[in-house]
Amino acid sequence: STDRLSIGVKSPLTQGIKESNAGGTVGRTMSLLGLKAVVVEECPGEDGCFVIYLGEEGGKVERADAARGLLNYELADWLHLKYGPDVSILSVGPAGENRILNSTVACTDAEGRPARHAARGGPGAVLGAKGVKALVFAEPRRKRVELARPKEFMQLARGMAARLRQEKAGLKKYGSAQMVRIVNSLGGLPTRNFRSGCFEEADAISGERLAEILPARGGRMGHPCAPGCAIACSNIYYGPDGKYVTAGLEYESIAMLGANLGIADIDAIASIERLCDDLGIDTIETGATLGVLMDSGWLKFGDVDAVLSLLMEVRRGSLMGRLVGAGVTTVANVLGLARVPAARGQSFAAYDPRAFKGTGATYATSPMGADHTAGCGLPGRGGLDVAKPEGQATLSFELQVVMAAIDSCACLYVGPTETNLKELAALIACRYGEAFSLDDILALGKKALQAELTFNEAAGLGGAKSDLPEFVREEVLPPKNLVFDVPRADLKDVWQDLSRKIELLF
Amino acid sequence: STDRLSIGVKSPLTQGIKESNAGGTVGRTMSLLGLKAVVVEECPGEDGCFVIYLGEEGGKVERADAARGLLNYELADWLHLKYGPDVSILSVGPAGENRILNSTVACTDAEGRPARHAARGGPGAVLGAKGVKALVFAEPRRKRVELARPKEFMQLARGMAARLRQEKAGLKKYGSAQMVRIVNSLGGLPTRNFRSGCFEEADAISGERLAEILPARGGRMGHPCAPGCAIACSNIYYGPDGKYVTAGLEYESIAMLGANLGIADIDAIASIERLCDDLGIDTIETGATLGVLMDSGWLKFGDVDAVLSLLMEVRRGSLMGRLVGAGVTTVANVLGLARVPAARGQSFAAYDPRAFKGTGATYATSPMGADHTAGCGLPGRGGLDVAKPEGQATLSFELQVVMAAIDSCACLYVGPTETNLKELAALIACRYGEAFSLDDILALGKKALQAELTFNEAAGLGGAKSDLPEFVREEVLPPKNLVFDVPRADLKDVWQDLSRKIELLF
Repeated sequence: STDRLSIGVKSPLTQGIKESNAGGTVGRTMSLLGLKAVVVEECPGEDGCFVIYLGEEGGKVERADAARGLLNYELADWLHLKYGPDVSILSVGPAGENRILNSTVACTDAEGRPARHAARGGPGAVLGAKGVKALVFAEPRRKRVELARPKEFMQLARGMAARLRQEKAGLKKYGSAQMVRIVNSLGGLPTRNFRSGCFEEADAISGERLAEILPARGGRMGHPCAPGCAIACSNIYYGPDGKYVTAGLEYESIAMLGANLGIADIDAIASIERLCDDLGIDTIETGATLGVLMDSGWLKFGDVDAVLSLLMEVRRGSLMGRLVGAGVTTVANVLGLARVPAARGQSFAAYDPRAFKGTGATYATSPMGADHTAGCGLPGRGGLDVAKPEGQATLSFELQVVMAAIDSCACLYVGPTETNLKELAALIACRYGEAFSLDDILALGKKALQAELTFNEAAGLGGAKSDLPEFVREEVLPPKNLVFDVPRADLKDVWQDLSRKIELLF
Repeated sequence: STDRLSIGVKSPLTQGIKESNAGGTVGRTMSLLGLKAVVVEECPGEDGCFVIYLGEEGGKVERADAARGLLNYELADWLHLKYGPDVSILSVGPAGENRILNSTVACTDAEGRPARHAARGGPGAVLGAKGVKALVFAEPRRKRVELARPKEFMQLARGMAARLRQEKAGLKKYGSAQMVRIVNSLGGLPTRNFRSGCFEEADAISGERLAEILPARGGRMGHPCAPGCAIACSNIYYGPDGKYVTAGLEYESIAMLGANLGIADIDAIASIERLCDDLGIDTIETGATLGVLMDSGWLKFGDVDAVLSLLMEVRRGSLMGRLVGAGVTTVANVLGLARVPAARGQSFAAYDPRAFKGTGATYATSPMGADHTAGCGLPGRGGLDVAKPEGQATLSFELQVVMAAIDSCACLYVGPTETNLKELAALIACRYGEAFSLDDILALGKKALQAELTFNEAAGLGGAKSDLPEFVREEVLPPKNLVFDVPRADLKDVWQDLSRKIELLF
C-alpha cells in the first residue's frame, strides 16, 4: 500500500499549492527506476505535444503529435503499442491538453488502464500547458528497491500488511463506496447540490450494491490498484452487458456524480465517471459544478443525457465545455451565485461540512483548498461527534499534519493511527538504514505543511481567510438540521503554531 | 465639474474594494436633496425587482416587475414616464440585473439619457444582486446647496471655471478621444489584444475624426455631461443617418472596442459602445475580454458582426453571454491562458503599461485592480518620461493619493495640480465654513486609500502581490519595443508608508 504517486503543482483552481496523489503502478515503477521525482520545467511553446520516456537506459522527450486530442484510454492503448505493454503511464486527456482548469493526470493501474487519477486541483492543466501529453515509465529488469535492512523490513512489512488486511476488510469487500450508507446515515451525503445530506436512493448507489452486481457481470471488488496492495479497495466495473466500463469507482465519484446530481442509476454514474476519466477531469469538482448548474436550472437534476452531452462539450473543447471544465467556483461566478460549495477555489468533496465538521475545518484551513484527503474527520476520530463543533479545528490540525506525513510514504487508507505511523517510521528506518521515529514522521508532516503555507504566501495568498462560504453557516442542512458552527476563531488559529504537539487523537 | 457621483462596492471582479465614479446629473441632484450617500444594505431575496425613489418628500422602495430585463435606454424612458421627465436615474441593465460580473451602474446625463456609467469593477452586479433595478432622484424645487461663505465660494468657483475652460480647451474640442493620437504616437495604444502599441488606423478613430464628423450629423463635441461643467469633454454621437447613437464616446471605449479589437470603423465602435451602455457592461473590460477571445481564435479581429452577436448573448443571459460578461480574467482562466491583460481581476485600461509605466505602476498597486483613473502617469506628470521606469512607482503613489482626493470632490479632469488642489480645498472651506487646506485635501486622499487597503485586508487580499502579469515584463511591445520594467521592489514599497510627504510632482 505504499506505491502511491504524488503530483505537485501550482493549482489553476486555487492559485496556491496542490498536492494530488494517485494509485496505480507509476509510483512503484519510479521507485524501481531509482527516481525520486520528475520535475518538468518551462514550457515548449504553444504547439507542443510531447511524450517523456523514462527507462533504465535513460530518458528522452519525443514529439507525439499523433497523440493530440486522444482520450486517456485510447492514449494508453496507443502508448502501450508504441512503448510496450508493461510500461506505466501518466497522461492528460483532452481536458488537460487544452489547459481546461479542472483536469487530472491519469495513472495506469495494475491492468494498464488509466483509471487512477491525481485528480484534484487541476494538475492536468499544468502538464498540458507544458505540452506534455504523457510520461512513460518502463519497468527495469531488476525489480528490487535497495533496502538497508531487508530482512527486518520484510518482516515488518508482512506483519503490517496482515494487520491491514484484517482491519480494512470492509474496504476490500465494499470499496470506499462503503461510505455511501455511512455518510448518508449521518446526514452528510451531498445531495442535489448540497441541499440535503440524505439521498433517498442511497442504497442503489452503495458499496453493498456494487458488491452485489459486479461479480455477476465479470467485474470485481477488492481490486488492488497497485500490485500487492494489502487493502485492495478498488473495483473493476462491468456494465449490464458484461463489458468493462471503468475501474476504481470510488465513494467520492459516486456521491458527487450520483446523489449530488440526483442520479440513482449506478450504471449511469459509472459511465459518467468513465467519461470523466477519459477526458481527464476530476469527478469531485465536476459533480459539484454540474450540481450548481442543475440547481440554477441550466440542467435538470437526474438528467443523465444532459450530463453526457455537456461533458462531450469538454471533449470538443468548446467555450461551453471549457466553462464546465473550469470548476465550480468559476462557474458559480459566471452564474452570479454566492452559494458555492467550495473553499478557496476548490469544491467541497463528498462530506457536507455541516455534518462532518472536522472535515469542514479541513476544507476551511487546508493550504490546498477544500480537500477531504488533507484531513477527513471521520466518525470516531479524536473521539468527537462529527456533527458537533467542539475540538474539530484541533482535530483537523492534527489530521492534516499526520495525513501530510502519510501522503509522503503510503496510501491514506493505511490510516492515521499511532500504530500505523510508528510502523511506517520503522519501515522507513529499515529502508534507509537511519534512525526514523514517530517524531520524525510527524516532523515530516509539519515540514510539508510549512512548505505549503510558505508557497501560498509567495503566491500572494497569505491574507486569504480560513473559512467556508456563508451558506454553510446560515442554511440548515436537512434532514438532521445542521449548520457549520466551528467557531471562526478556532479556524483562524489552526496555523498559528505549527510546532504544537500532536496528541494523536485518532 | 464637481457633480460627480461615486459608487463603492466589494467588486465581484477583484473581490476587493472598488470605487467607480460617473458623470451625469445624479450627483448634483443628490446634493440638492441634501443626500451625502445612499446605502443599500442586504438583499430582498432572489426574485426582487425594485425601484428606490428619493425626493424632497422622502423616499420609498417600489416593486417594478414591469421593468425586468429592460435595457438601460428603454428603462430610462419608462422611468421618465412614470416619475417625470426631470428625474435623474441610476440603473442597471440586463447585465447587472442578472448579476453578470462585469456590469455597470448607468447614470443619466443632462439630456436624461443613461449614457454615463460607474462602469469598472462590476457595481451593477452588486446592485442587481440586491434586486435594485434603479434609483430615481427627483430634483427638489429649491435648487441651492447651502454655502457657508457663498460670495467667496462663487468668486473662487467662477475663477477656477474660467481657468479650466482655458486650460482644457482640447478636451472640449476633441473630448477624451484626443488621447487616441497621443497614446498611439507614444506606442501605448492597446492594439489587437495588447500585441502592439500602435494602431495603423488610429486617425480614423481619433478625437479629431469625431470633431470632424459629429457636428455635420447633428451631434456635437464639447457636451457637458452635467449642466455647467467647465470642461465639457463629452460628446453626442449621431450616426451617418443623422440619428442619435450614444453620448460620451470616450477615449477608453474607442481604444478598447476599436484598436484593441482591430476595428477602425468609428460608427461600428459607437454602436458597440451604445450596446454596452444599454446592457450595462463596462466597455474597457468588455474590450479586453473580446480582445482575448479574438487573439485566441474564437472570433476574428475586426469582426463587428461577431462582436454584436456575442453581446446579444449577454442580453439573452445565456451561459455564453454570462461568460463573456464575466470579464477578461475569468474568460482567460476558462481559455487556459496565462497572458491576461489584467491585474488582480480587473483588465488594464487603454494605456499599455509597457509604454505608460506610471500608469502600469498604478495598475500593479492600486487597491482596486488595474484602473487608470486611480493614477494615470500621463506625459509630463512628475517630469518623467512615460516609457522609462525610474521614479514611476513614486509618481504612482503620489497620483493615487491626489486622485483619491480629487475623486472625493470633483471630476478627475480637473487635474492633479497643486493649483487645482489648493482651489478645491478653498472651495470646500467656503462650502462648509471650516478651515480646509492643501494638507487637508491630501490627508483626505490618504484616508481614502487607507480605508481601501484595510477593506482589502479584511476581504482576505492582504497578501496579494503588487505586480503585473509576466507577459508585460517579457513580451516586447512593438513598435517602440518596450517592456514593463518598473522594479518589483519599487512596486512593493508603494504602500509601505502612507504618511510619506506628497511632493506634488505633477
